[in-house]
Amino acid sequence: MRDVAIIGVGLSKWGELWDRSLRDLFVEAGVNALDDAGVDKVDMMFVGCMSGGLFAGQEHLGALMADYLGIAPVPATRVESACASAGTALRAGMMAVASGYHDVVMVGGVEKMTDVDGAGATAALAAAADQEYESFHGLTFPGLYAMIANAHMARYGTTREQLAHVAVKNHKNGALNPNAQYPFEVTLEGVMNSVMVAEPLRILDCSPITDGASAAIVCPLDMAGKISKAQPVRVTGSGQASDTISLHQRKDITFLESTASAAHQAYEMAKVKPGDIDVAEVHDCFTIAEICVLEALGMFERGQANKAAESGETAIGGRIPVNTSGGLKSKGHPVGATGVAQIHELVLQLRGDAGPRQVDGVKRALAQNMGGTGASSTVHILEAV
Amino acid sequence: MRDVAIIGVGLSKWGELWDRSLRDLFVEAGVNALDDAGVDKVDMMFVGCMSGGLFAGQEHLGALMADYLGIAPVPATRVESACASAGTALRAGMMAVASGYHDVVMVGGVEKMTDVDGAGATAALAAAADQEYESFHGLTFPGLYAMIANAHMARYGTTREQLAHVAVKNHKNGALNPNAQYPFEVTLEGVMNSVMVAEPLRILDCSPITDGASAAIVCPLDMAGKISKAQPVRVTGSGQASDTISLHQRKDITFLESTASAAHQAYEMAKVKPGDIDVAEVHDCFTIAEICVLEALGMFERGQANKAAESGETAIGGRIPVNTSGGLKSKGHPVGATGVAQIHELVLQLRGDAGPRQVDGVKRALAQNMGGTGASSTVHILEAV
Repeated sequence: MRDVAIIGVGLSKWGELWDRSLRDLFVEAGVNALDDAGVDKVDMMFVGCMSGGLFAGQEHLGALMADYLGIAPVPATRVESACASAGTALRAGMMAVASGYHDVVMVGGVEKMTDVDGAGATAALAAAADQEYESFHGLTFPGLYAMIANAHMARYGTTREQLAHVAVKNHKNGALNPNAQYPFEVTLEGVMNSVMVAEPLRILDCSPITDGASAAIVCPLDMAGKISKAQPVRVTGSGQASDTISLHQRKDITFLESTASAAHQAYEMAKVKPGDIDVAEVHDCFTIAEICVLEALGMFERGQANKAAESGETAIGGRIPVNTSGGLKSKGHPVGATGVAQIHELVLQLRGDAGPRQVDGVKRALAQNMGGTGASSTVHILEAV
Repeated sequence: MRDVAIIGVGLSKWGELWDRSLRDLFVEAGVNALDDAGVDKVDMMFVGCMSGGLFAGQEHLGALMADYLGIAPVPATRVESACASAGTALRAGMMAVASGYHDVVMVGGVEKMTDVDGAGATAALAAAADQEYESFHGLTFPGLYAMIANAHMARYGTTREQLAHVAVKNHKNGALNPNAQYPFEVTLEGVMNSVMVAEPLRILDCSPITDGASAAIVCPLDMAGKISKAQPVRVTGSGQASDTISLHQRKDITFLESTASAAHQAYEMAKVKPGDIDVAEVHDCFTIAEICVLEALGMFERGQANKAAESGETAIGGRIPVNTSGGLKSKGHPVGATGVAQIHELVLQLRGDAGPRQVDGVKRALAQNMGGTGASSTVHILEAV
């Protein structure tokens, strides 16, 4: 099994982008990743995308993106695990490299969410839930995560204010990130008084709808220095797991079993513990999600991560800075692209290139990406070489 | 790099199945593959599906299928390359095994095509073409392949009768296959006089709309005999390539560059030549496709495969039997499932279990799976152990 390094990362512009199509977005991110790595060709590509079909009437995204990047006949496959699509693209790319099938692989993701026919983005996103038991009956993701939030509040005494503190922290970080879709701060009162979406979640508890793409270049660790002048980052741990697709089948909807399982695999592979992580990007699609994820990752005891943002433990400068990029909340959440955008932030942190968001002395970073209400999770651990 | 064996294969029932949902179909195929292998667990799964979103309002198929197969928290990823989705699932599964990340991996595919809202199956399938330059303007797949057929007729003198002979041959084989959706013979006159779809292609030149699923179990070759009593089959060659997504960008629309490239990779890896193949399953989504594929695979010279079905060279008992299963034409074409259904037929042939369709003395078999008008292709070579 060959060790895998990341030698380049790139993003497209993120936002509500009426001048950019699905293919434009991914090509922009891909070219930026190639430029960052200083390489001009790849052997293979995995493109994450949740629903090219429902959002843009376009499937077959591997071939499309290879064509428009000008890299055909390179093999190119689209992977999908809802909002964890790019996390699974990275993991698939690692296997392609580790197996020896390919040397230099582009992994990434894309979603064009703002130009949707029919019932719109919320209905398309609902295809990540259980069509027969959840979405068919009208449940949407704000509703599903609202049930998780209510359960966490009932079981652990989590407060409305504690949820809001997650949004305040992540917007404070995102205000320092030129790539963020919403690079501004929000106040506790602003979150608490924002429009209700699904009790108790308000609009400022929810990540936005975003057009955007992300890409990274992976290769064998021992090849990194020969083909690229960029400072490589080693992927020392990778985990992936599944769980029931619908919430009603779970024993405890406040605990993300798939994240816990994926994290366990990644920690074992990297031979580290939660306390060894210096900075993390996690899947805060809603404020409650960040709280549940931190508990599943073992960074906080069960029922204890509700205090994390309020106490400052997860702020830049805190015990374990979380979502220095602004997270999905402030940076944006083009669902198929998010997993590798998390990697982009962590590579900057490990290189010391995160500017005003830089965490001091980062040697080891963790990315957690999640699909649906946690039916899929990936966890990756990155270390400076 | 570990060598990879296939130790089990399974199909669901195929057809217009109003009593089976998307998840039912894949679970049926998956359980049949586990039974065939005689194993009761897997470490990972790759599920091919072209458009769960447009056909069934359901994405996130990896997690869904893992859940309903009862194998969660096993990691499960959906892969998509239009009608080559299952071919890319097999290749991704091979990398998972070859890399050492996983030992026993289920690969397969599924499509539920007959219960579609909106503009229906033809519109959903058009998402495999170029949305901006082809499908948006009303082009559908019969129209695209009709252009290829007209070009082949103009350049090589291919006749309407020669196209029909492909359908006659494949239905003759399919009539011997209890798994086929349309297990009956058709006559040359029947094909020639069937309803016109897109000049020169008539309804009996077209593969059908099918509900169905396929699955296979792969593992390291040196583990096969220890965990399974089934006769293993070794995957000695694997290739994948891409091409322009739209036809108008190609130099010669009659030649499938991505199939030629994928075949070249697979032949090199297996150290064989086209003439060494004893039986092949190829992507005959339309009769003209089988002709173009056989030329791209190097089994016939360019412009010469038009005579193959007419002369009997590709019949059971001929020089190189092609689509003994009945092919997509007679067996059916649940688009995301087709690639691994081809593997199902070839494993039966290599085991000597193909019944009245059995080709004598099969030692080496080839599967070619294709997305769109050939923007994606996979080629796999299987050998008896």
